[in-house]
Amino acid sequence: MSLQPVLIAGKWRPARSTGTFRAENPAVGKTLPGEYPISDWSDCNEALDAATAAFGELRTTPVEKIAAFLNKFAERIEKRSAELVEMAHAESGLPKTPRLAEVELPRTTGQLRQAAAAVLEGSWAQPTIDTKLNIRSCLSAIGPVAVFGPNNFPFAFNSAAGGDFAAAIAAGNPVIAKSNTSHPGTTRLLAEEALAALGEAGLPLATVQLIYRTSHHDGEKFVSDPRLGATGYTGSRHAGLKLKAAADAAGKPFYAELSSINPVFILPGVLAERGAKVAEEFAGSCLLGSGQFCTNPGLVILFAGESTEQFIAAVKQRFEAATPGPLLSSGVAKALLSGVQTVQTAGAQLLTGGQPLPPPGYRFANTLFRVTGENFLTASEKLQTEMFGNASLLVVVRDAKEVQTILTRLDGNLTGCVYSDTQGSDDVLYTELEPLLRANVGRLINDKMPTGVAVSPAMNHGGPYPATGHPGFTAVGIPASLRRFAVLQCYDNVRPNRLPATLRDANPQGKMWRLVDGRWTQANVGS
Amino acid sequence: MSLQPVLIAGKWRPARSTGTFRAENPAVGKTLPGEYPISDWSDCNEALDAATAAFGELRTTPVEKIAAFLNKFAERIEKRSAELVEMAHAESGLPKTPRLAEVELPRTTGQLRQAAAAVLEGSWAQPTIDTKLNIRSCLSAIGPVAVFGPNNFPFAFNSAAGGDFAAAIAAGNPVIAKSNTSHPGTTRLLAEEALAALGEAGLPLATVQLIYRTSHHDGEKFVSDPRLGATGYTGSRHAGLKLKAAADAAGKPFYAELSSINPVFILPGVLAERGAKVAEEFAGSCLLGSGQFCTNPGLVILFAGESTEQFIAAVKQRFEAATPGPLLSSGVAKALLSGVQTVQTAGAQLLTGGQPLPPPGYRFANTLFRVTGENFLTASEKLQTEMFGNASLLVVVRDAKEVQTILTRLDGNLTGCVYSDTQGSDDVLYTELEPLLRANVGRLINDKMPTGVAVSPAMNHGGPYPATGHPGFTAVGIPASLRRFAVLQCYDNVRPNRLPATLRDANPQGKMWRLVDGRWTQANVGS
Repeated sequence: MSLQPVLIAGKWRPARSTGTFRAENPAVGKTLPGEYPISDWSDCNEALDAATAAFGELRTTPVEKIAAFLNKFAERIEKRSAELVEMAHAESGLPKTPRLAEVELPRTTGQLRQAAAAVLEGSWAQPTIDTKLNIRSCLSAIGPVAVFGPNNFPFAFNSAAGGDFAAAIAAGNPVIAKSNTSHPGTTRLLAEEALAALGEAGLPLATVQLIYRTSHHDGEKFVSDPRLGATGYTGSRHAGLKLKAAADAAGKPFYAELSSINPVFILPGVLAERGAKVAEEFAGSCLLGSGQFCTNPGLVILFAGESTEQFIAAVKQRFEAATPGPLLSSGVAKALLSGVQTVQTAGAQLLTGGQPLPPPGYRFANTLFRVTGENFLTASEKLQTEMFGNASLLVVVRDAKEVQTILTRLDGNLTGCVYSDTQGSDDVLYTELEPLLRANVGRLINDKMPTGVAVSPAMNHGGPYPATGHPGFTAVGIPASLRRFAVLQCYDNVRPNRLPATLRDANPQGKMWRLVDGRWTQANVGS
Repeated sequence: MSLQPVLIAGKWRPARSTGTFRAENPAVGKTLPGEYPISDWSDCNEALDAATAAFGELRTTPVEKIAAFLNKFAERIEKRSAELVEMAHAESGLPKTPRLAEVELPRTTGQLRQAAAAVLEGSWAQPTIDTKLNIRSCLSAIGPVAVFGPNNFPFAFNSAAGGDFAAAIAAGNPVIAKSNTSHPGTTRLLAEEALAALGEAGLPLATVQLIYRTSHHDGEKFVSDPRLGATGYTGSRHAGLKLKAAADAAGKPFYAELSSINPVFILPGVLAERGAKVAEEFAGSCLLGSGQFCTNPGLVILFAGESTEQFIAAVKQRFEAATPGPLLSSGVAKALLSGVQTVQTAGAQLLTGGQPLPPPGYRFANTLFRVTGENFLTASEKLQTEMFGNASLLVVVRDAKEVQTILTRLDGNLTGCVYSDTQGSDDVLYTELEPLLRANVGRLINDKMPTGVAVSPAMNHGGPYPATGHPGFTAVGIPASLRRFAVLQCYDNVRPNRLPATLRDANPQGKMWRLVDGRWTQANVGS
């Protein structure tokens, strides 16, 4: 089979490559058909030039066309869903139903349509008008956006169709997608549909481009290139921080979503009240999709006592009873084993699992560790190693004071969760823990597990470093996620006919919310 | 005279210092009374600990108290204004009237009062509520903020009273002020009033702390310390980028306002229409405060022709007729000379000035350069060297195409300005230039000079790198400037009594704007 082409400047063409790679079916451990290029710098360079030209055109493109593209792309994904699901299943090992076909694909098209609605409505740009001084400002497109998608959502976070993609396009930017190397085929199919939808909507064809892989050096050069506006990156901490350092040095915003272990605090009262139910919820959340979620509960804090021992026994039983699904790749399997070994070496006691399962494919025994609070504190850094997969660490603490100390050692996380009883017996403890936990997490949750990230305007899928690169932004939730890919632009005394539509006296569609003289309104200025 | 104390943990106490320094009166070139310490790391460390404790208290402090502090501080500054103006005048050489007493001091107290109003009103946090999913989020305080103030606004950007200070406090953060070393006395007086106002308002006394100077190494350690939330820095590009690199590596937001040369494009029609008036405006703006503004027009683009020659002659005459005021310090004088030499060596033709003036004090002849567009392009990097002071470079271009090329070489700037005629003869040119200029600047201005930055909600005192460190934020304008010193915090399924007041169903004062189910409203949820 011949080498797959890259999508650059509106055309599928052979890559200028320095090597090739193939994807693998992780459920069976077999190489898949399809060979993909590792692009050299000239591919990157050409993509950046084409994106720059497309950006120039997009700047004066009516928002209706951008919205039309997003909607048409969603339709096309739905029309090709059978093939997409088949390919994503082969490349990720994720179940076709319900996960890929019924959950992730509809989520992906839903995001694209929400983004389309946000473009048309326009409020995302937070237009601000001071009539007395005639100063007006709004957020505007930042320029070509590089999107590095993660391995765990072949559709919903795909670099050529997922959340960052939708946000960047909706904010008016071209996207250069860098495929995740574990699902190049899925990304290729999505990019094919994106290109067709661009043509139908009449957008510049270089608004969406795709390369599969580059050298690390070229990746760093790419995210710091003067032509680039910003980068959206979701993936491993190690690779992400290297790219971030390069982008930072060039003053290029780099929105990274890195690792997170999502601490869950289960207070004594709730265990007494409904421990079995919480055990069920925890095991379900931790093992869902073989635990390969950014918000997987990887650290659980429990208070020493009989209810906790019962909870642990119940969880262990569930972990042992559940059949592990495949991991996303050999790389994930390797990293999981390494994480598990780190945690074990750091002094955690293995309750179950801890080993890879025999072939075919890459699976890992559902893995549960426990450690005392005291021991956690002796190795808190190593015991916060992300075990990306179906593994979790239970920390059994002595008292509230010990929890407080643990909280001061926690890294920044995407989420933090507290389960407490409904009768109020846990309330004092909640009040004591909350300030420290709140400061360490982007999303604070009560009484439910962190997996499941609603695409909702108030969502925050973000958090303090090192969970992400900047604590003020979210990767999920429309319109908030668009604001990452924007710059603040002010117009001071600019003549009315030279203002962008968003900032003219007349509210273009009458639907956009604008902050006029300190009041949010949908009205025209002066009306 | 004994060494001045630092303000740490609510007390003025002797510094643990590694050396001392003195300020100088730049108008006469004489050392001022008052010796100030260069703090060692133990001072920094103690300040960070105290700020952490204060931050914990501020989190549950009613907004009324924070607003009261800001208002009381403004009052106290006014009561001590004579002494403050005297001290700032001695340390900066800036005129007492109108500049310090009638412009900058009222601006400073005005900012503090605007910040107080923003705290009480609450909309700055952009509370967002999705009632169906019960997900709620808002911006919240980021943690202790380090403020490095610039030399050119001893009041309005003072690290212990200026714009970054007001924004950080209003967002709920303690501030650790690092004095600009050219006005330590002014900063000390301001911090004295801040401490008194903290006591009156009942805020933690470590909410405002002051150190004067540290080693470069300790500065880098400081901005990357885990206890710190963020840094606001205004100053030189060189020092700023070193601090930024340290902060970036630690994942700490670093809001930098660095150098900017603020290009002004004067189109042919406007010169024909009102060239003399534009020459007057330009000379006034460029020489105001000896040109020591972040938004000083340091680069002017003109089209070759008779009107341009007349304009240049008129400007030269004004530059020669105006008496140069003192520069802010010997350091500024040195940097200005170095910038002037760089520009001259790079091929610009000196029209007037170009030399320091003889003592007493630090003054520089009003300096004007010209260069052709062609020559500018041969050395565009060096010719964009900031000449911070009363100096500017005129670029005389051949045609629109040459301007376009120049625009592609421009660094990011805070502002960009276009003068055009009122009859429409410049309109085609405007349309051609605008997209490239717009992309390079934070604030696009028509028909007026860039100096004068209104404190208005729609203002953007920010811009693309290297003018600032992040193109999405502004350092001036309330409430927008508060959002730099905040993190996005989401509450998912959190019980009503555990929510912050901002996110409860009842709108606390009924004045805060919140985005509830996609609509901005001041109403209670469910009403």
